[in-house]
Amino acid sequence: MTPLNPHYQEVIRAIFSQAGFISALGIQLHNLGPGWCETELMVTPQHRQQNGFIHAGVQATMADHTAGGAAATLMPEGKIVLTVEFKINLLRPAVGERLRCRADVVKPGKTISFVEAAVYTLQNEEAKLVSKLVTTMTFVPVKP
Amino acid sequence: MTPLNPHYQEVIRAIFSQAGFISALGIQLHNLGPGWCETELMVTPQHRQQNGFIHAGVQATMADHTAGGAAATLMPEGKIVLTVEFKINLLRPAVGERLRCRADVVKPGKTISFVEAAVYTLQNEEAKLVSKLVTTMTFVPVKP
Amino acid sequence: MTPLNPHYQEVIRAIFSQAGFISALGIQLHNLGPGWCETELMVTPQHRQQNGFIHAGVQATMADHTAGGAAATLMPEGKIVLTVEFKINLLRPAVGERLRCRADVVKPGKTISFVEAAVYTLQNEEAKLVSKLVTTMTFVPVKP
Amino acid sequence: MTPLNPHYQEVIRAIFSQAGFISALGIQLHNLGPGWCETELMVTPQHRQQNGFIHAGVQATMADHTAGGAAATLMPEGKIVLTVEFKINLLRPAVGERLRCRADVVKPGKTISFVEAAVYTLQNEEAKLVSKLVTTMTFVPVKP
Repeated sequence: MTPLNPHYQEVIRAIFSQAGFISALGIQLHNLGPGWCETELMVTPQHRQQNGFIHAGVQATMADHTAGGAAATLMPEGKIVLTVEFKINLLRPAVGERLRCRADVVKPGKTISFVEAAVYTLQNEEAKLVSKLVTTMTFVPVKP
Repeated sequence: MTPLNPHYQEVIRAIFSQAGFISALGIQLHNLGPGWCETELMVTPQHRQQNGFIHAGVQATMADHTAGGAAATLMPEGKIVLTVEFKINLLRPAVGERLRCRADVVKPGKTISFVEAAVYTLQNEEAKLVSKLVTTMTFVPVKP
Repeated sequence: MTPLNPHYQEVIRAIFSQAGFISALGIQLHNLGPGWCETELMVTPQHRQQNGFIHAGVQATMADHTAGGAAATLMPEGKIVLTVEFKINLLRPAVGERLRCRADVVKPGKTISFVEAAVYTLQNEEAKLVSKLVTTMTFVPVKP
Repeated sequence: MTPLNPHYQEVIRAIFSQAGFISALGIQLHNLGPGWCETELMVTPQHRQQNGFIHAGVQATMADHTAGGAAATLMPEGKIVLTVEFKINLLRPAVGERLRCRADVVKPGKTISFVEAAVYTLQNEEAKLVSKLVTTMTFVPVKP
């Protein structure tokens, strides 16, 4: 049994509010629960690559960080979450006004968690899957 | 034989200058040649995650885009380069004043290229490997 | 729209019956339909690694080949399917009498398809998820 | 500093001799040292996929197991090595009389190691790179 961190709501909020890169991109925590996390992003020209599509790095950052949030809901107290590795598949060129991401822990663990995330573009209320990420995350002790 | 794009210098410069996300992050083209590309980034608080380390998404964006630059040096004319998928391994928490990235095409192709990239932190003239990325990129026709 | 190969039933049966490695391992086609494929394997000592668990390579082979079967149900005529790359996560040490695998095409395409597969151990009628694979597959012309 | 297991020669030999799947495939330990391992395989029709190429699963098994051997040269005593995840890129259809694999530990650790491996076909004394694998491996205590 993986223990549920009783303070996970505030832990995950801090993971978002204290990450300068996430604030700079405009990625916002949307919803969360034990083993999952959802985020949103309003797309601007600063998120684009050279052909006008939403940059793979924006999608990867959003999916990685949302996966970290999902993992941290099941993280033992006194630990922090770090990404060991991730893989992302870009299924189609991404165009849209907003991005939404949903991450789910597939296999929780005390030191290693396996998490999946999906990124969708939202345009005129239509959601389209644009990328999928799988990641291995680890929990390490907080350094004093 | 993979043809060398005779205009690759200007093609790759445009891939960097016209990508809003790359400018916003401060990723700069450092050097390039047939089958390879190098970039640099001055680290600021806006590149950090919640524990003060350089965000995995910054490293992934830099490695992905530099790999795209490397692939595009061997890209047929009239095409653009898109990321099909990538995987990144974060080898250690990244701390430093600057990031440097080097990407090399391992297997070029007419429609699919396999590229590797490495990201280093630079601190007091010492380079330390912090992440490695492998990626599949594809060349598609420019839409009119 | 991705065209459905009208002869996909016989195409996929040949992909299994003509692959020496698949026969040698004992991987059997169980069921298939447009965009998906299922296989089974009776586990023997020849499938084990040094600690008695089912080898990661057995799981990877089964998931890769089943994914190829799923992709080929949507493959244009006159083409063959080849694996560009795959990533597999081993969620727990695998122990059991039988393996079952299910693969689904997530994003079909004319030349590149993105497929996911899951491998389960079956023991006393209980199925347990042991590994998940994601893969990029490509369709290339048959050489005369 | 990662400690070097003083008995690593015999540990790695056992990892090969006691793995039924490795013996069944004919994968042989060729050479090893601290942080690296090399293997060889004589190709037979039982290693092929449906078009006559060496199956991706054969290459993945060889690269994964050789990477496990390389990781285990730096494994603490009283532990065993397990694969957390791997990704393999198949660079070209593989044809040849023999396969050779070389694995190198890129980032050793006490519980998690990052390893790379390359697979080559050998034909008439010419070696050709056919696939590259990256993997995350973990060391866990031996269960009594």
